Amino acid sequence: MSHTFFAKHESTLSKALNAIQTRGYWSLFNEMPSPRAYGETAAGDGEAAFKATLNSYFEIGQPGTEGEVGKEVSPFGLQLSIKYPRANLETLLDAASAALKDWRRAGPQAWVGISLEIIERLNASSFEIAHSVMHTTGQAFMMAFQAGGPHAQDRALEAVAYAWNQLKDIPATAYWEKPQGNGSPLTMEKHFSVVPRGIGLVIGCCTFPTWNSYPGLFADLATGNVVVVKPHPAAILPLAITVRIARKVLSEAGFDPNIVTLLATDPGDGDFMQKLVVRPDVKIIDFTGSTSNGAWIEEHARQAQIYTEKAGVNQIVIDSVEDMKIVARNIAFSLSLYSGQMCTAPQNIYVPRDGIPTANGRISFDEVAASLRDAVETLLGDPAKAVELTGAIQNVGILERIESARALGKLVLDSKVLTHPLFPDAVVRTPLIAKLDVSDAATYLNEWFGPVSFIVATDSTHHSLALASRTAASKGALTLSVYSTDKSVIDEAIEASIDGQVALSINLTGGVFVNQSAAFSDFHATGGNPAANASLTDPAFVANRFRVVQRRQHIAQRAQVPV
Amino acid sequence: MSHTFFAKHESTLSKALNAIQTRGYWSLFNEMPSPRAYGETAAGDGEAAFKATLNSYFEIGQPGTEGEVGKEVSPFGLQLSIKYPRANLETLLDAASAALKDWRRAGPQAWVGISLEIIERLNASSFEIAHSVMHTTGQAFMMAFQAGGPHAQDRALEAVAYAWNQLKDIPATAYWEKPQGNGSPLTMEKHFSVVPRGIGLVIGCCTFPTWNSYPGLFADLATGNVVVVKPHPAAILPLAITVRIARKVLSEAGFDPNIVTLLATDPGDGDFMQKLVVRPDVKIIDFTGSTSNGAWIEEHARQAQIYTEKAGVNQIVIDSVEDMKIVARNIAFSLSLYSGQMCTAPQNIYVPRDGIPTANGRISFDEVAASLRDAVETLLGDPAKAVELTGAIQNVGILERIESARALGKLVLDSKVLTHPLFPDAVVRTPLIAKLDVSDAATYLNEWFGPVSFIVATDSTHHSLALASRTAASKGALTLSVYSTDKSVIDEAIEASIDGQVALSINLTGGVFVNQSAAFSDFHATGGNPAANASLTDPAFVANRFRVVQRRQHIAQRAQVPV
Repeated sequence: MSHTFFAKHESTLSKALNAIQTRGYWSLFNEMPSPRAYGETAAGDGEAAFKATLNSYFEIGQPGTEGEVGKEVSPFGLQLSIKYPRANLETLLDAASAALKDWRRAGPQAWVGISLEIIERLNASSFEIAHSVMHTTGQAFMMAFQAGGPHAQDRALEAVAYAWNQLKDIPATAYWEKPQGNGSPLTMEKHFSVVPRGIGLVIGCCTFPTWNSYPGLFADLATGNVVVVKPHPAAILPLAITVRIARKVLSEAGFDPNIVTLLATDPGDGDFMQKLVVRPDVKIIDFTGSTSNGAWIEEHARQAQIYTEKAGVNQIVIDSVEDMKIVARNIAFSLSLYSGQMCTAPQNIYVPRDGIPTANGRISFDEVAASLRDAVETLLGDPAKAVELTGAIQNVGILERIESARALGKLVLDSKVLTHPLFPDAVVRTPLIAKLDVSDAATYLNEWFGPVSFIVATDSTHHSLALASRTAASKGALTLSVYSTDKSVIDEAIEASIDGQVALSINLTGGVFVNQSAAFSDFHATGGNPAANASLTDPAFVANRFRVVQRRQHIAQRAQVPV
Repeated sequence: MSHTFFAKHESTLSKALNAIQTRGYWSLFNEMPSPRAYGETAAGDGEAAFKATLNSYFEIGQPGTEGEVGKEVSPFGLQLSIKYPRANLETLLDAASAALKDWRRAGPQAWVGISLEIIERLNASSFEIAHSVMHTTGQAFMMAFQAGGPHAQDRALEAVAYAWNQLKDIPATAYWEKPQGNGSPLTMEKHFSVVPRGIGLVIGCCTFPTWNSYPGLFADLATGNVVVVKPHPAAILPLAITVRIARKVLSEAGFDPNIVTLLATDPGDGDFMQKLVVRPDVKIIDFTGSTSNGAWIEEHARQAQIYTEKAGVNQIVIDSVEDMKIVARNIAFSLSLYSGQMCTAPQNIYVPRDGIPTANGRISFDEVAASLRDAVETLLGDPAKAVELTGAIQNVGILERIESARALGKLVLDSKVLTHPLFPDAVVRTPLIAKLDVSDAATYLNEWFGPVSFIVATDSTHHSLALASRTAASKGALTLSVYSTDKSVIDEAIEASIDGQVALSINLTGGVFVNQSAAFSDFHATGGNPAANASLTDPAFVANRFRVVQRRQHIAQRAQVPV
């Protein structure tokens, strides 16, 4: 059965292997929610499946359930009232451990084949997942579909491809023959078993519950580990659907479905989590969330392999441009997309205080700021269209952050409240842009997650790049963007990005935005600065999730004791 | 120049790549110290080079030298009196950081090519290194030559091969073209830079200063890091010679020799080390040594990637044999080789208290013990031959351990003092074997590093295997050995080794011994139990020593801003 799935997906796997070694554009899954790609009834069926989960109990069928949890709130104001099983932790982890032994024995082809089958089934449920992502994260539908569905599935496939790329190079057996001068050679038969670490814990976030969790989930599964999926209390549904699909495939393949389990919790689960992550039986932790929680795990969970993505300060350096309007349009989109609630969204925009050269002559710092303000206002001018870009605000902390930013004064552009034409109770806010001086480091060197950005006046572009590099290295960053028509500045920016170990985007003016990270091509985070200790996805992300245990014996004894 | 070295060694590299994927027998370097392999004058030249270092100052030519260190003592009684530069740590690390930038820029082919050239030069100095290993570790000459020379060089080459196997799969550039329905596609040019972590610190041990340090040293170098080599105060010379050779090759290749530096210290450097390993600029640590020091580093050096090999409790399970004499001969060799001062040497031998079946009928527990005693006494019967097997005792702690073991009573075989025919002051001890009951766990579950082993009476082989597995998982182990003529017992032993994540040797009766770990074929440590958090060598050992930093821009702007 498992080998059936491996054979079924082998050509996909070889395409994916080629993609991770060339890292050009490749995607297995169609990002357009079109009937042509997903079938005439997919959209309706998916929405119906989502609606069927509302105001009801989400059955997982896993052991150790003791009552219910579930306090998700839709940022669009839709009433969810979904209940999930409250797991007895001991029972759940015992079940996971019990499932481990057969799963461990199944071997790499089974792990990879079943992982790929699960991903395919997830793709078929992309519409249901899209609605669940939309109404937990506040993403507009199109983004919820793309980032929560096909793009997340591509990231999952990418992780499986990296895992297989390591696993396939480990020989199952070896014949060892060592010459002994004139005597007969020493000969041995050796076997190499890939052995998983054990229980992997995947801790999701509230903004990209699937996109950020799938790489760890599937890297664990594809290397033979069992996985406990622990969603953020505010975004349980997308991962609950994921776990249910995974369990169904595992059962069909003849395995214990407890290889993948759900650990749903209610808000205020901090103490519970602090006890969970240091358990000796938790061998791998994939975490996406706040710097404080991520740092706590890195500091205390010494028994586990830890992969974290935390917060950072993303930056744009503007040195010189051909046409500020075109540059501003691109940046405005990045600031507005999902109201800046992306870990890749830019926050600090460094501009020399004496302005920048353009093809039409020099423009002042304030003219650069005004251009950015105008671009955002133009982009979001029509509320009906704007909400499809901004989506809604995920949580009240972000609203409070907007208030704090407003209190700073120096506003270039204030955040506005928009009314969503379809969801009157949706909490929609447009970007706030403030003007700061480089001396205001205490403000702009912290992460202001949400629709808050700062245009910071620096002494020079050289100054801007040094600041950007230092900030990436010390505070962490997932993205750095530079605008310059001067090759020497670009070269300096490249050095700055290497020193800060942060991905660099150069002169983005077209249809690509700094927030975007494409599976199979863009490495998401370098793992080399405080924003993340791992990269999505590279060999280091998978290679330590398993070990190799060997055995050897003299060939002569093979007849006597077959192994 | 660097590419010259890469081209020069490319065929060796491809053979090594094939070897790590097949893991049969392969060795680049001849393990026999023969004129045919190393040249007529090699032996004499090497000994002369070694003798020239005695009673003198070992010049490295690195910055920041403040006086001298050096208190090495030859276990064979030879007077060494070698002095080494005492480094000013700040100056040394500043020099290493200064060397990093050009080295980082040189790129994978330069890193790998120069690493391979250094390894080749080390091989040419195998005789000098052999004498230096012999007179610091106490290894007999043949072992010092093989383990300290060619075998260590093979392990170095293996690490470089694993590094290159990862590096070669990272594309330098990518062309990204994303279809846009009917519109013209989005196109981008992407560049991927391999970026080293920074300063790697390699901490050597006093028994295998080259064999255990080369993998980390060359894994660092081959991935673009700079390396500070910190030998054990009792075994500085082998690594000092290594560093001097590395610096010479680096200079010839046109690089700053401070890419590799020596940090020699005197005994009692504990406080100094505790400050060193937590420095923010130390990004990678490779450690071989005691569990207490290794655990301290794992606990405190949160800023670094850490690869440790610590202590463990290696075990042999005897269930049933064809001929106990043949089995005993193999085990006796493992107990006697380098007086049990190998991290892979067996310590606990589990035998059912009611004896074991053989081809000639059942023999009692005491008969098994007597057989092992007789085998050791026969093997070491001729002192002149014995010392070439046992070598000398590296440090006084091991002598004290022999005393403590003797005080336990229950001796099957007492440790004897042997006089070395060539080195009258050599400290030579034969193995001590004591008989214990499984209830004496407080004794045999600790590591007794040195020529001390225990024959432990268990309730049954099933009991023995459960104990062995549990002990490997909880105390750590590098080796597990089983003797049985029963396939079901072998299968149980395989499960036990997988549960304990320890390498298993089955029915070793010929010319292979459980202590031996062959480069390119045997994984040394699994990294899955407390004896070590890493394996020599696998992808996980190299994949996190570097990061990838990417940059991207629209193709359209290529003409405008060439990158």
